[in-house]
Amino acid sequence: MIHSLTAKLDDIFGFEQASAHCDIPCKIYDPCTAQVAALSVIRFIDLINELGEKDSLSLAEKAQLSRLVREKEIHAKKVKDEIVVIWGDYFKQPQFEAFPDISQLVHNIMLTGSACKQHISRDKAILLLSLVNEFAEAFWSTKGVAVYTATCPYPPSETVVYPKLA
Amino acid sequence: MIHSLTAKLDDIFGFEQASAHCDIPCKIYDPCTAQVAALSVIRFIDLINELGEKDSLSLAEKAQLSRLVREKEIHAKKVKDEIVVIWGDYFKQPQFEAFPDISQLVHNIMLTGSACKQHISRDKAILLLSLVNEFAEAFWSTKGVAVYTATCPYPPSETVVYPKLA
Amino acid sequence: MIHSLTAKLDDIFGFEQASAHCDIPCKIYDPCTAQVAALSVIRFIDLINELGEKDSLSLAEKAQLSRLVREKEIHAKKVKDEIVVIWGDYFKQPQFEAFPDISQLVHNIMLTGSACKQHISRDKAILLLSLVNEFAEAFWSTKGVAVYTATCPYPPSETVVYPKLA
Amino acid sequence: MIHSLTAKLDDIFGFEQASAHCDIPCKIYDPCTAQVAALSVIRFIDLINELGEKDSLSLAEKAQLSRLVREKEIHAKKVKDEIVVIWGDYFKQPQFEAFPDISQLVHNIMLTGSACKQHISRDKAILLLSLVNEFAEAFWSTKGVAVYTATCPYPPSETVVYPKLA
Amino acid sequence: MIHSLTAKLDDIFGFEQASAHCDIPCKIYDPCTAQVAALSVIRFIDLINELGEKDSLSLAEKAQLSRLVREKEIHAKKVKDEIVVIWGDYFKQPQFEAFPDISQLVHNIMLTGSACKQHISRDKAILLLSLVNEFAEAFWSTKGVAVYTATCPYPPSETVVYPKLA
Amino acid sequence: MIHSLTAKLDDIFGFEQASAHCDIPCKIYDPCTAQVAALSVIRFIDLINELGEKDSLSLAEKAQLSRLVREKEIHAKKVKDEIVVIWGDYFKQPQFEAFPDISQLVHNIMLTGSACKQHISRDKAILLLSLVNEFAEAFWSTKGVAVYTATCPYPPSETVVYPKLA
Repeated sequence: MIHSLTAKLDDIFGFEQASAHCDIPCKIYDPCTAQVAALSVIRFIDLINELGEKDSLSLAEKAQLSRLVREKEIHAKKVKDEIVVIWGDYFKQPQFEAFPDISQLVHNIMLTGSACKQHISRDKAILLLSLVNEFAEAFWSTKGVAVYTATCPYPPSETVVYPKLA
Repeated sequence: MIHSLTAKLDDIFGFEQASAHCDIPCKIYDPCTAQVAALSVIRFIDLINELGEKDSLSLAEKAQLSRLVREKEIHAKKVKDEIVVIWGDYFKQPQFEAFPDISQLVHNIMLTGSACKQHISRDKAILLLSLVNEFAEAFWSTKGVAVYTATCPYPPSETVVYPKLA
Repeated sequence: MIHSLTAKLDDIFGFEQASAHCDIPCKIYDPCTAQVAALSVIRFIDLINELGEKDSLSLAEKAQLSRLVREKEIHAKKVKDEIVVIWGDYFKQPQFEAFPDISQLVHNIMLTGSACKQHISRDKAILLLSLVNEFAEAFWSTKGVAVYTATCPYPPSETVVYPKLA
Repeated sequence: MIHSLTAKLDDIFGFEQASAHCDIPCKIYDPCTAQVAALSVIRFIDLINELGEKDSLSLAEKAQLSRLVREKEIHAKKVKDEIVVIWGDYFKQPQFEAFPDISQLVHNIMLTGSACKQHISRDKAILLLSLVNEFAEAFWSTKGVAVYTATCPYPPSETVVYPKLA
Repeated sequence: MIHSLTAKLDDIFGFEQASAHCDIPCKIYDPCTAQVAALSVIRFIDLINELGEKDSLSLAEKAQLSRLVREKEIHAKKVKDEIVVIWGDYFKQPQFEAFPDISQLVHNIMLTGSACKQHISRDKAILLLSLVNEFAEAFWSTKGVAVYTATCPYPPSETVVYPKLA
Repeated sequence: MIHSLTAKLDDIFGFEQASAHCDIPCKIYDPCTAQVAALSVIRFIDLINELGEKDSLSLAEKAQLSRLVREKEIHAKKVKDEIVVIWGDYFKQPQFEAFPDISQLVHNIMLTGSACKQHISRDKAILLLSLVNEFAEAFWSTKGVAVYTATCPYPPSETVVYPKLA
């Protein structure tokens, strides 16, 4: 059933799928928002684990734990949402040809984003950032923009892929 | 770079990827919400096109057009969001093996959802519903639940895939 | 004061109140979203109570508790919102005549939804589902659609009222 | 079926229903938010109708119309939401005895709120404010707080019911 | 750079900055929403501290703590948002001349709102209400509306600045 | 009244105000999100004005206008929200000493953001971007991070201030 529907899809979208020029409405896609959110997830996990080093938690610290978990939840969701928007709206035939594994990468970001919601593991959050950086590198490549890596100028001071714009 | 990261992903998630039992937190996934939203998109486009049959629009009808466009926007977004949640949280290795084209189907839902936001074409909205029904059929199949098709009991009276539960 | 205003209401809406055909904008109402949300509330309470069986909670389990409470909160709110939309937008004079106690039922759903936010009692969540099922049964009856009950095909495996569409 | 479930409801909530003291979590209910939102709906309709007095609309005026319709939509929804929260969370047995028609009033607010979304009629928006004022009067009465009416100190300069607090 | 841009700003807005009559779109600003939210923050902190008086928390009480923290978070954010809207949309040259310290007051509300999210200190929540009351007093003064203070007719029974409208 | 409250504020926050190290919870602030949103506002206005060049609008183009206005509204609000978060949470005594006009700049961003919602003027949207760039420059300066300007690598191809991180 997938094949016949995809054929129908080709009929309807035609030219759109053959060209990257149609990413209406605005052609503005920038993975920086997802990257900042992924950094935030790492940061919240660091702050959660600082609380874990205490023998017991005061009422105020329990409240703080609850806040940190909520922010982690919101930012991990934001990572997933921002990446899906770029993948779902911007990636079309030419980008898929350049990066045939991109759907698998996006799916891994979904799974890892979920894992970051479910767990308080720093390794998982670092993996999430790595996957998002990898996505950003692919994205900028499809735009013909070179990238460089640098340590982000705020905690958690991890490595981020930036576009080379100067 | 994708391959080495995926290997690392396997290390971290291990058992989780090999089993469908781990779709924590709640194991409750139901495509009915996406299907109702897709039906709504068709309905809003029908109502928009009814306005288009008039020679000119009164102020009240212009206001109504603006409302319909907004609701179409919101519901097309909802279709995309609901499908991505199931794909991103529930689909793991066994489901991908059963439905190797599922990521392409999800991406087509993204593109068609966007097209339904950008256009007022009934054909595109019908296609969106077909793709979502196809996704629902695959989803219920992974659950071992048979499906049947029926006309939904309200406008736009289109065909919907339902799980056979009796 | 209520009587004079209601009279004025009749003047303004006139025909609308005497007919069920005017549930503009889209005539698409489906209690399935509320039912899935009610099932989710039961599920979150089950998962919360699983945590309660442990002697003490690790930091990760405390974080998980916080997540489960938040999701329970969001889904109980969703049950209330979805039911109020159908009651407030779709129910008019003919539906009230067929189900004169429907406003009390809706109010009970509000109270029970609140109780499910405030407590972690499985009995209250089961009651919420029962009330929502009862509302669904009344709703489908006003549409002239028969219903059947079945166990939902995912946890918490509770009984749900579905429309008979085949 | 309603009767048996309501009986069960009594079993579970017991004391809660017999007392107004249990409006946990915070006992803070204030209809002022709904009243301000209802005033805003009137105001947006006034501004929409100002645009209607022009022979034709410039592009900027069409854009402004779209904005006004959206704000009207959002604020009419807010009226409905705020009233339902007070009715659903705060009103229990003693309040229903004092105001047996309150559920009908709330339902009228739902219908009139919907009508204000669907139409650009000033009469309907004035009716919405009247109904919300009537609700506010009943609410403050259950609190033993007297009310007075005054013209609100900003457009649309309509009559509002305020609590007498000095 | 600020000076040249401000000059350009004057060019573009011109008359708007010299007059308070242009607070389009609706001229409806009312600090009551921010005041109710600030009262709610105090209330949630009171309820949190009631939990703190217990020797240990049951699972249900831990869940309740998590809920209270979340509501505190949401309402402190709401205080900040509501105040910024009035400051950012309504305050222009004449209001700044009448209240030259208003930006500092608004910034203090931002800081204190953040502190109320981060802490469970009743003193900080009382300070937040005081600052919001002070803002309300300034706001009503720019409208030429006198104010009075009264104890709010619900918990936490704190002093609130109200407009004198009778 | 402002002075006495500010004194009280100093008592309560003490050390916090004297140091920039306390921007809890996460110390992650990045104006890039506001900058992308400001670029989007320009882009939506460009697309709106393309529609304005047509003699008359088809139904589909009227729908597209409504969508563009809504996105412009959402993104102009996002600019305002993102800037206020940085100003309200991160700026404290040392940052105010370095940039004594920052509150006026933020207020100008509020006014210009509102103007971009109310109008379809490209000049106003360019001004909004300039003000946000100016804010970004000040922000990075307080972090000791140098900046450079470059044309953003997507439409509307305007100048953006970026941190120098290599």
